[in-house]
Amino acid sequence: MPRWDPRAQDRLRAAALELFVEHGYENTTVTQITERAGLTRRTFSRYFTDKRDVLFAGSEQLPGAVSDAVRRADAALPPFQALLAALVDTGALFADLVPHAAQRRAVIASSPELQERERTKLAAVTEALAEALRQRGAAASRAKLLAQVGIAVFQTAFERWTDQPEQADFAARVHEVATELAASLDPAAGSATQPANP
Amino acid sequence: MPRWDPRAQDRLRAAALELFVEHGYENTTVTQITERAGLTRRTFSRYFTDKRDVLFAGSEQLPGAVSDAVRRADAALPPFQALLAALVDTGALFADLVPHAAQRRAVIASSPELQERERTKLAAVTEALAEALRQRGAAASRAKLLAQVGIAVFQTAFERWTDQPEQADFAARVHEVATELAASLDPAAGSATQPANP
Repeated sequence: MPRWDPRAQDRLRAAALELFVEHGYENTTVTQITERAGLTRRTFSRYFTDKRDVLFAGSEQLPGAVSDAVRRADAALPPFQALLAALVDTGALFADLVPHAAQRRAVIASSPELQERERTKLAAVTEALAEALRQRGAAASRAKLLAQVGIAVFQTAFERWTDQPEQADFAARVHEVATELAASLDPAAGSATQPANP
Repeated sequence: MPRWDPRAQDRLRAAALELFVEHGYENTTVTQITERAGLTRRTFSRYFTDKRDVLFAGSEQLPGAVSDAVRRADAALPPFQALLAALVDTGALFADLVPHAAQRRAVIASSPELQERERTKLAAVTEALAEALRQRGAAASRAKLLAQVGIAVFQTAFERWTDQPEQADFAARVHEVATELAASLDPAAGSATQPANP
């Protein structure tokens, strides 16, 4: 096997998620992951610090990426529209995670420790988003509210996109979810007049 | 001092929050709390299991209380309106926490461990809300989205209410925040046409 394999990270991720689903996250070792992938522990260490990192690699860059994207959004956009534009922009970073997203969600749902790690990650992204909105002039209370709602829209859109990537791209999913949410919030709208559920 | 003091729990909570703010949560002991309150450790144990419980006492009842409230909401209401009615309903449970809410928030913000505990609590409430909305017929993806947005509205309304309880009651704050959010989500609305920030 070649010492340098550009697809090694992806093979390791696929092997790890398979094993996590088959045997449970707790019961899977790094050795099992590298054996399943047909790679060495040294190769594993080149891409991931430990088995948890297979699920969260790169997530420390998310808060910065999202707030940079808010800063790049057209200055004329009102806060929530700037936030949606930033979410669409950031989604491009996740294209290579699409094939693994459903397995990753299942593994995280199986472990309170991983759920907690996921919440910590999302809280850091929410705080970065809120700060970026405050820098665009939003009051603190509204900036935090919109950031929380933006993260909820992002999560929903990401799940729908990765569950059926052939049906719509990420940008379309973000706008679909935002539109659906706006309709749900309208007190005049009865449930019968809301858009169909996917 | 009387062996049974109906205000003992409140005195202990006030003493604990004062000490957490003055010396830090980590540096405060149960002994210091009881001394500050002029009460015994035995009295402390009657109301709280440990110092963390001062911040989270009763929170294990929240998921059940919120989902019961969703079930009680008028069957004709669309999902998000049922959720708002449930949040208003549940807010009545928190009236005695109003004087301590700002201090509690400051203490939690000071400690990653407490923030994590708070997120775990909110995740359990969100899951209960989503399940209650599914039972009213909402599709899983939308039920989760609306539950997440509902919790964000609740948190924002609760902060505004407890920061200025004399200005508006909790129900008015919930509807104020929901209205503000609906306006923010409207793509046609420029920031100039949105309601004033508090």
